[in-house]
Amino acid sequence: MKVVLTRKHYFIYLILFVIISPLTAISQTRVRTPVKIPDIPGFLTLKCDFHMHTVFSDGNVWPSIRAEEAWRHGLNAIAITDHIEYLPHKGDILTNHNRSSEIAKAHGVDLNITVIKGSEITRDMPPGHLNAIFLKESSTLETETWRQAVNAAYHQGAFIFWNHPRPLGHQKDSIGRWYAEHSEMMENKWLHGIEVVNQRQYYPEAHRWCLEKNLTMLSNSDIHDPIQMNFNIAGGEHRPITLVFAKNNTEEAIKEALLSQRTAVYWENKVIGKEEYLTPIFNNSIKIENKPIVLKEKNRIYVQISNHSEINYELELNGEINDVHIPEKVTLYGGKTILFDIRKKDMKLRGEKRLRLPYEVKNLLITPDR
Amino acid sequence: MKVVLTRKHYFIYLILFVIISPLTAISQTRVRTPVKIPDIPGFLTLKCDFHMHTVFSDGNVWPSIRAEEAWRHGLNAIAITDHIEYLPHKGDILTNHNRSSEIAKAHGVDLNITVIKGSEITRDMPPGHLNAIFLKESSTLETETWRQAVNAAYHQGAFIFWNHPRPLGHQKDSIGRWYAEHSEMMENKWLHGIEVVNQRQYYPEAHRWCLEKNLTMLSNSDIHDPIQMNFNIAGGEHRPITLVFAKNNTEEAIKEALLSQRTAVYWENKVIGKEEYLTPIFNNSIKIENKPIVLKEKNRIYVQISNHSEINYELELNGEINDVHIPEKVTLYGGKTILFDIRKKDMKLRGEKRLRLPYEVKNLLITPDR
Amino acid sequence: MKVVLTRKHYFIYLILFVIISPLTAISQTRVRTPVKIPDIPGFLTLKCDFHMHTVFSDGNVWPSIRAEEAWRHGLNAIAITDHIEYLPHKGDILTNHNRSSEIAKAHGVDLNITVIKGSEITRDMPPGHLNAIFLKESSTLETETWRQAVNAAYHQGAFIFWNHPRPLGHQKDSIGRWYAEHSEMMENKWLHGIEVVNQRQYYPEAHRWCLEKNLTMLSNSDIHDPIQMNFNIAGGEHRPITLVFAKNNTEEAIKEALLSQRTAVYWENKVIGKEEYLTPIFNNSIKIENKPIVLKEKNRIYVQISNHSEINYELELNGEINDVHIPEKVTLYGGKTILFDIRKKDMKLRGEKRLRLPYEVKNLLITPDR
Amino acid sequence: MKVVLTRKHYFIYLILFVIISPLTAISQTRVRTPVKIPDIPGFLTLKCDFHMHTVFSDGNVWPSIRAEEAWRHGLNAIAITDHIEYLPHKGDILTNHNRSSEIAKAHGVDLNITVIKGSEITRDMPPGHLNAIFLKESSTLETETWRQAVNAAYHQGAFIFWNHPRPLGHQKDSIGRWYAEHSEMMENKWLHGIEVVNQRQYYPEAHRWCLEKNLTMLSNSDIHDPIQMNFNIAGGEHRPITLVFAKNNTEEAIKEALLSQRTAVYWENKVIGKEEYLTPIFNNSIKIENKPIVLKEKNRIYVQISNHSEINYELELNGEINDVHIPEKVTLYGGKTILFDIRKKDMKLRGEKRLRLPYEVKNLLITPDR
Repeated sequence: MKVVLTRKHYFIYLILFVIISPLTAISQTRVRTPVKIPDIPGFLTLKCDFHMHTVFSDGNVWPSIRAEEAWRHGLNAIAITDHIEYLPHKGDILTNHNRSSEIAKAHGVDLNITVIKGSEITRDMPPGHLNAIFLKESSTLETETWRQAVNAAYHQGAFIFWNHPRPLGHQKDSIGRWYAEHSEMMENKWLHGIEVVNQRQYYPEAHRWCLEKNLTMLSNSDIHDPIQMNFNIAGGEHRPITLVFAKNNTEEAIKEALLSQRTAVYWENKVIGKEEYLTPIFNNSIKIENKPIVLKEKNRIYVQISNHSEINYELELNGEINDVHIPEKVTLYGGKTILFDIRKKDMKLRGEKRLRLPYEVKNLLITPDR
Repeated sequence: MKVVLTRKHYFIYLILFVIISPLTAISQTRVRTPVKIPDIPGFLTLKCDFHMHTVFSDGNVWPSIRAEEAWRHGLNAIAITDHIEYLPHKGDILTNHNRSSEIAKAHGVDLNITVIKGSEITRDMPPGHLNAIFLKESSTLETETWRQAVNAAYHQGAFIFWNHPRPLGHQKDSIGRWYAEHSEMMENKWLHGIEVVNQRQYYPEAHRWCLEKNLTMLSNSDIHDPIQMNFNIAGGEHRPITLVFAKNNTEEAIKEALLSQRTAVYWENKVIGKEEYLTPIFNNSIKIENKPIVLKEKNRIYVQISNHSEINYELELNGEINDVHIPEKVTLYGGKTILFDIRKKDMKLRGEKRLRLPYEVKNLLITPDR
Repeated sequence: MKVVLTRKHYFIYLILFVIISPLTAISQTRVRTPVKIPDIPGFLTLKCDFHMHTVFSDGNVWPSIRAEEAWRHGLNAIAITDHIEYLPHKGDILTNHNRSSEIAKAHGVDLNITVIKGSEITRDMPPGHLNAIFLKESSTLETETWRQAVNAAYHQGAFIFWNHPRPLGHQKDSIGRWYAEHSEMMENKWLHGIEVVNQRQYYPEAHRWCLEKNLTMLSNSDIHDPIQMNFNIAGGEHRPITLVFAKNNTEEAIKEALLSQRTAVYWENKVIGKEEYLTPIFNNSIKIENKPIVLKEKNRIYVQISNHSEINYELELNGEINDVHIPEKVTLYGGKTILFDIRKKDMKLRGEKRLRLPYEVKNLLITPDR
Repeated sequence: MKVVLTRKHYFIYLILFVIISPLTAISQTRVRTPVKIPDIPGFLTLKCDFHMHTVFSDGNVWPSIRAEEAWRHGLNAIAITDHIEYLPHKGDILTNHNRSSEIAKAHGVDLNITVIKGSEITRDMPPGHLNAIFLKESSTLETETWRQAVNAAYHQGAFIFWNHPRPLGHQKDSIGRWYAEHSEMMENKWLHGIEVVNQRQYYPEAHRWCLEKNLTMLSNSDIHDPIQMNFNIAGGEHRPITLVFAKNNTEEAIKEALLSQRTAVYWENKVIGKEEYLTPIFNNSIKIENKPIVLKEKNRIYVQISNHSEINYELELNGEINDVHIPEKVTLYGGKTILFDIRKKDMKLRGEKRLRLPYEVKNLLITPDR
């Protein structure tokens, strides 16, 4: 069949009205797998990761790989955040704090991935590790004290967040601590967000601080190796992702959303955030497939619900249902339709009954205690 | 998070205004995987299989399983077509030609699967095996001659089609033959379609006959065992499916579409049918993701194309492209976005050039020779 | 390359010294996936399922499918156990309590699957549902009282076990109850085993009774539908399996092992049984890959352990380790090699230290409380 | 269950008689998937890849990643072969031709992966790109002419092979050419092998030259990116692998085997090499499961064959079989048992018949034309 690409050809015509210059590499077709979480009214749901490393600090990949991984795995934006202070490869690699972002950004332009310049200010607790993103010049963050570094980022208009708020090498079950220095940062408008998830770990205390102090919740990979070494992406796992509810897909819109706390945390099979964002994500994900039918002679009512997102929503009954059998737990699998049935408990019951089904979605978290 | 099921609760309220009677079985949540092929303008694209067997002839499953499999694997409608003449289990099962459709239909109602009553008239070639579907009473097809059986189906308003048009146990590379009996059937309006695909086999001669004689193309599983024994559905394989372009999802609309030749064959990774149906399926599946951009200093242009269907569209260049390097073959993977680049061939070339990219979709077949 | 099948040809020659009679069906290549659990010293580890249904009682497949499923999914033996008392298809299928085993056995012979004749005596609790297997004639179990039925099975030399020892439609968290009738059965040597696992459910009370009363532990699917409808076998899930430690792969050896309590329960990712069987399974599954090395200048010691079984062994530290960091939890993934490291805790420590690593395998259960 | 690690504990005791020094990183359990190809009589079958790049030339990963990938994906040995002449990252990374091997080797020691020091001599055709491995000092290869570079490698006792023997950016269907320079190299004992497979491409001309000129066949990934970006290893794909038949798993034994042409090429689902190595690989992979049985009254004979390797052996009949139906094509799937049947063709035939089944294994290649 010959394709009549019709209107779609329009674009292909356009892009070829250009003067193109020489090139030698051989092209290769590459594949992107979308992250299926719906947009919400008024905003795009951008998939972002604002914490990652390259060979320019203690990471193990060349910076362009970070943009390539982001494209392949369905992200819209990333920040490169190499350490300012910790440069274990400096015997081999010339120190230049801007370089990794520059290299990644050049590749990001080709792929339509937004690459944000960032740096990790890596100091002892307090205040611990901090990421400053949307920087113009990273080298000014190489200072004697952490206050000088943060202040330099602040004067570049950076969005600054606290990383993995527990001390490194922390004991099992240790809890991160809020220090006077963090309060000081907030007073100076030096602190805008906290990582509620870093790598594979969720910090309920960070979640609580974000709610109490109106800070932006973040979920980042902090990846050092090639990402498929840590996350089995080909097998369906995803990295931790910060969902950003942005007015459009640009660096400016992402910054505006981050400064307005319009984010949610997408971690394993959970989404963590404010009810005002989680409710429309859920509502835009599911659809009840049955037409409203009134069954008179039927023993059993079948309900079919489709879920167009990739999240497996885990529903649990939360309350008493007296007159019918319905499943206590239902999982609405991502990309699937599920079916369950509702049946009468008391066989002698006759007549009509109006019921509210009090299901709770266990993997959408508004507070650490749900 | 408490779910505010809002408008969606409306339906759940409604269905409970009913008088329900006793029931003992235990409910179980079941999962349906959609077949992702888009609708086309004016019609739903229904996924159907019109040829299958149960223990009531030579199949190996109870009839309700056929409706359950159809629901789980994303179909909208099936026909049960047990043999009239071949009943190897009759020593154990009482002969009743209507029974398997009845049992399957009862289960189909619960699942919202349309189950059509059919029978396979199983005679030697010519005319070979024929399926009659949309029957009212199958027992009248138990006759002495095939002409009597077909006539009985015809008088019930059946849609009749020729199954796997090669003799059983046929030689490798043998080709089905059109007999005078088939011409006779057409003259009597006894023949409305042919299986272009049966089980795993495609019959180009059947494809050609459908085009020449204006017959409906069908693609059916002819399944005897549990379907996951023959098709690795959990691993992503699908059974042969007849795509029916119907005005709505009802038995009547399916019959009207079949009698109007509004079908296509979905077999392995191919869709076979008329251009008027294949073009909108392709156009509704893909989206070119790039905004129209004019690049002046760029070496290379990147094109991103998304495919929202489950078909992997296999594009091949069909014609000369003189001035740029573009991939000769591109696969638009189902559910993915692909990226490829376009580059200048002649490095000295300057100025503007307008190009048409003559890609052909190799796995959308309009004729046996493409 | 031409295959020199050498010694292997020997067999192929042999089997063709036969007189073969006519046949019409078309051959198909079929694939068996082994269940990888090693044999133990002195015994084969046979993979068995002793509880399943067909269309001849309330199942939904023809009996030959049960042998075919068993072969494909790596089993060695099955018992067909259709209900004596519950025959919902009897309006369509002639009642014959022996027929389903006969049909399945004929297919099993071709596949080298042992098919054991059984029946389910389906009475109210007490004593509940009982399976009798190794029957010669099932029809004698159709009696007025359960005692008559069990006695009839006993006189045929049957192995008799109690199925899913909780009442059907049982309340969540209800516990099965041991009745006087069960003690009576034991006194009469009418009761030889209990299902510790049925379908997806584990019964700790049944496990405890087996240990206390020296009864054989069983793990059975009780499957009614095609098995891939209930267990995602293509995706790596397995049905519940009774591991039988038998002297050889024959019906007689299986019976002898069952009567001698030489079984274990293989359910999800757990194996439940006596230490004398679980220890050699574990030891024959794993191999420590490192050669014994003494490291003097090394910071860290790496340990590599391979697991040749399909079970993911879940190790947890059970005890104090004072001087080194070792992982608290290690999973030895089935078919993989894992690597972890051991490091000093106290950096000032010098000299030699001898340690015992008290790992416990959490998914090998000897008692309900481990 | 408490594990009685018995003899296995021996090793764990031993390794702890050591003086260990400080360390800060957090341990992580890592998983290795074996490459399942059996050893052959007298030799281990080592899985090797002798061509790969890092950030120290034009690759995109830190060198330690190459050892880590090799361990995870079941390899035994790799060579790091960064370019001598092509250093696109030299503005950021200090030039040191030995450095990437050194870094990778340090990580390889921990994992028990042999890391061989190599360099790619990257000159125009002729003679094209050459890899020299088992080097002591790579910097001496930075010379004016290719002859000086090769001679420097030769004097270090290197094993030298010709990479991807077609010019870069070669036309479709172009064929590599043997130049006088290659003959000159052979006369000087400067050339020991050729890549028969590089990345995803097989070169039949290279295969032929290896056979004619007694050169070692190699199959290498030439990987630049993280390997899971180019090969879907989590999905079951493998990189190109050189199988080395070595007396033991040491660098010396690998070198001895390479210099003795004891290798085979493992590429996609094919193994390419000499019959003396392919035959024992096949024979050690498969097992005919049936006991020799003589069937007298049976219609059909069933054959079961297991394949313990990961290669799917593709058998095709090569010759006439007059009297029985047997499948023309049989695939012995890796890790599975397959079953097919043999049936009489002529229904009147009686008596005994002796047959040889002339199957050919299509994916074991001895010559480019099989």
